[in-house]
Amino acid sequence: MPQKIVKLTVKDVRFPTSLGQHGSDAMVSYYRTMPTRTLAFLRMYCTHTDPDYSVAYVVIETDGGMKGYGLTFTVGRGTEVVVCAVKALSGFVVGKTLEEIVGDFRGFYRLLTSDGQMRWIGPEKGVIQLATAAVLNAVWDLWARAEGKPLWKLLVDMSPEQLVSCIDFRYITDALTEQEALDLLRKAQTGKTEREEQMLKEGYPAYTTSFSTPHLPPWLWSYTDTILVGLWVKHMTIVFIQCLALLCVHVKLCTDALASGWSRFKVKVGAELEDDERRCRLIRQMIGPDKTLMMDANQRWDVGEAISWVTSLAPFRPLWIEEPTSPDDILGHATISKCHNRVMFKQFLQASALQFVQIDSCRLGSVNENLSVLLMAHKFQVPVCPHAGGVGLCELVQHLILFDYISVSADLNNRMCEYVDHLHEHFTSPVVIRNAHYLPPKDPGYSCEMLESSVETHQFPGGVVWANLLAKAPE
Amino acid sequence: MPQKIVKLTVKDVRFPTSLGQHGSDAMVSYYRTMPTRTLAFLRMYCTHTDPDYSVAYVVIETDGGMKGYGLTFTVGRGTEVVVCAVKALSGFVVGKTLEEIVGDFRGFYRLLTSDGQMRWIGPEKGVIQLATAAVLNAVWDLWARAEGKPLWKLLVDMSPEQLVSCIDFRYITDALTEQEALDLLRKAQTGKTEREEQMLKEGYPAYTTSFSTPHLPPWLWSYTDTILVGLWVKHMTIVFIQCLALLCVHVKLCTDALASGWSRFKVKVGAELEDDERRCRLIRQMIGPDKTLMMDANQRWDVGEAISWVTSLAPFRPLWIEEPTSPDDILGHATISKCHNRVMFKQFLQASALQFVQIDSCRLGSVNENLSVLLMAHKFQVPVCPHAGGVGLCELVQHLILFDYISVSADLNNRMCEYVDHLHEHFTSPVVIRNAHYLPPKDPGYSCEMLESSVETHQFPGGVVWANLLAKAPE
Repeated sequence: MPQKIVKLTVKDVRFPTSLGQHGSDAMVSYYRTMPTRTLAFLRMYCTHTDPDYSVAYVVIETDGGMKGYGLTFTVGRGTEVVVCAVKALSGFVVGKTLEEIVGDFRGFYRLLTSDGQMRWIGPEKGVIQLATAAVLNAVWDLWARAEGKPLWKLLVDMSPEQLVSCIDFRYITDALTEQEALDLLRKAQTGKTEREEQMLKEGYPAYTTSFSTPHLPPWLWSYTDTILVGLWVKHMTIVFIQCLALLCVHVKLCTDALASGWSRFKVKVGAELEDDERRCRLIRQMIGPDKTLMMDANQRWDVGEAISWVTSLAPFRPLWIEEPTSPDDILGHATISKCHNRVMFKQFLQASALQFVQIDSCRLGSVNENLSVLLMAHKFQVPVCPHAGGVGLCELVQHLILFDYISVSADLNNRMCEYVDHLHEHFTSPVVIRNAHYLPPKDPGYSCEMLESSVETHQFPGGVVWANLLAKAPE
Repeated sequence: MPQKIVKLTVKDVRFPTSLGQHGSDAMVSYYRTMPTRTLAFLRMYCTHTDPDYSVAYVVIETDGGMKGYGLTFTVGRGTEVVVCAVKALSGFVVGKTLEEIVGDFRGFYRLLTSDGQMRWIGPEKGVIQLATAAVLNAVWDLWARAEGKPLWKLLVDMSPEQLVSCIDFRYITDALTEQEALDLLRKAQTGKTEREEQMLKEGYPAYTTSFSTPHLPPWLWSYTDTILVGLWVKHMTIVFIQCLALLCVHVKLCTDALASGWSRFKVKVGAELEDDERRCRLIRQMIGPDKTLMMDANQRWDVGEAISWVTSLAPFRPLWIEEPTSPDDILGHATISKCHNRVMFKQFLQASALQFVQIDSCRLGSVNENLSVLLMAHKFQVPVCPHAGGVGLCELVQHLILFDYISVSADLNNRMCEYVDHLHEHFTSPVVIRNAHYLPPKDPGYSCEMLESSVETHQFPGGVVWANLLAKAPE
């Protein structure tokens, strides 16, 4: 029986992680005793530089009572703009049946991304692309639930023809034609069953950006020093104690991560070269010469700056430097970059400016566009190492990378999926990590569904979490 | 006395040009006699493929009672998303004085484009970039009004040091450093006064995309056939008469344009090759071998498709083919393209993938980012031919190209600014064209201010124009 989509709702859900950044146990008790004025100072300080991890959270409902959940990840301010864009797209979804959509998924994708009027405010980039991802993620979730399968399994079970029919090849045919895509997928049928069994048994290799424990926020490692300097000015004594405490925490975190089987680590760099050198040296010493170390510069550098900085950090042997410069700068020769669409990925691959492809479940146009990027990466023989973390990115992207291994690349060499141990407790089917591997999810859907209570309390600005925080803010 | 900005308002203003497309004299009377059902059919038909030219219209006000007007151009649906993004940016503007902003304009630009949280939903692209342009255009308008000068004159009178202090060189220093920019501007001081006088006397050369008269919409030429086929199905007889009428209109338009001194023409291509060939042949015959013909493909092609299509149209000797493929596709070798930021322009220039630079007053980050692109284009010795048309784009971009000639390029060879004779009547200081040249505007400001009555009646969806149209729409 056809499932007609009759309703789409979207919510602005934010986690006050710019506060949480100071959330080690020592810091939490410090908060509790702090006067409001100090909290206000911290808030102002934080919200200007640090993210409040957020999502535009989409729920679609069918006349048959089924629901599909989707989201896109954002970092605080501006989430309301993505929410507005989702509403602008909702007219393309509501009123259609799931069968109509998936029966011509390429056409539906084109409808969303190339509407004659909406196209102007993109195309396929920024706000409207994030909104497209949220909406399409919900559609894929609905489809997987309707089939009673986790998304990765739905994809693995689809025929090459069905998969290809979900991809919009517009603007990429000079790098990958439909026929080539079909050939690649058909060739990869060999050994599929074995790889699926292997994944169910072992899981997909992960790397960690956090060295975190459930009690400690994941970015602690990278940002601590800066923040401590900021605090120093106003709270010298307390900070000195914390500084010592956090150093111990770092060592403990790294030790814990090593003990839990982690062998691949990522560190944020780019703020202060001297500081980067000190931290990278410390980490390399702790993990030893054989473990893998990656670095992420978060678009901080110009091209010249990137070259000299990276040269200084080379002794610590990073496998890659992530986002050294503007995400638009193909000729800036990134080694790995988060692109906003398949056209950008295509060029990075064509220009050999990319040695690793870093897909994103919420920045590209959902599963559809990720399929095209996985296939192009395979054609150009570049390993895919997904970006994750944030809110829900781990939950979502695990499906795509499992599909990539089972049905496309058949290769684990130099491949791994990012993992950050953070905010998973807000999801109904959180990721399961065992021995530094993602275990394939078993629940039907795309693992996008959040706990109703989490959504409700974290809605911005009305949810109780924000209402309380904003009440404490100065005027 | 410092002018503190105390208020920012933004409005969603749309012109129902997707209807107007059928607005030849013959068509208007046809509309008047049409039953509502037919109008509804036409509306549905039109709004799915054709633009409703629109703006997100920004007004800022100071405590001293001054106002600055800014806008960004959009094409209908999605304008509300840009409006939402402007609101999200307003917190960075309101509360600041004009003096603070222009005293560190580079810093203010960085604040708007690189806020730690908002950056995620861009950066510097799509919705947030359009919103940034609207806000900054209003700031530049305010500044020019405060100085009592038209914007181009404000720019021309600024010292090289002041100009450079408005530019964010982030991500472009590998193509243009601050010192190089200063050197270029200093060198161009020679002959500035003469060039300014020349511009005041002769104006800046324009080309037309429309061949239009005030009574005829500018896109008539390019879209007519498709629409007529659509109508044919339902209204065969009437259409046959119109078809003949429009053919006469075309010939008349082109003849009129030639008679008014136009020597450079642009035609839209990319829908049907045979049709393109027929129209390009006709135009080339009418304008003769010596006049300049340009073509615009509006991102319709893949790379391979572009090459074969362009080969077929080569006999009609286009000077350029605009936007042959995705605007993100640097390696797709555009000859001319509208880029969304300086980083994209930089690469097109570095890759020699661009033979003409087409700046846009509302897609780039206002005057600030256009300054950097004008300077890069000059360094790479590529002529700048601005994109205009839409709503207000002609009004705004004339200031930038006048500045470019007087203070940067000092060259008119192969240079011209697009002109479309459309919607100027809604502005308080509309462009003045004489003998196919833009005459330098004299009123203080950036020519962004619209008539209050136009804004009021065209607000979407509440303004009377839309209220009436929507009342006629089916259910």
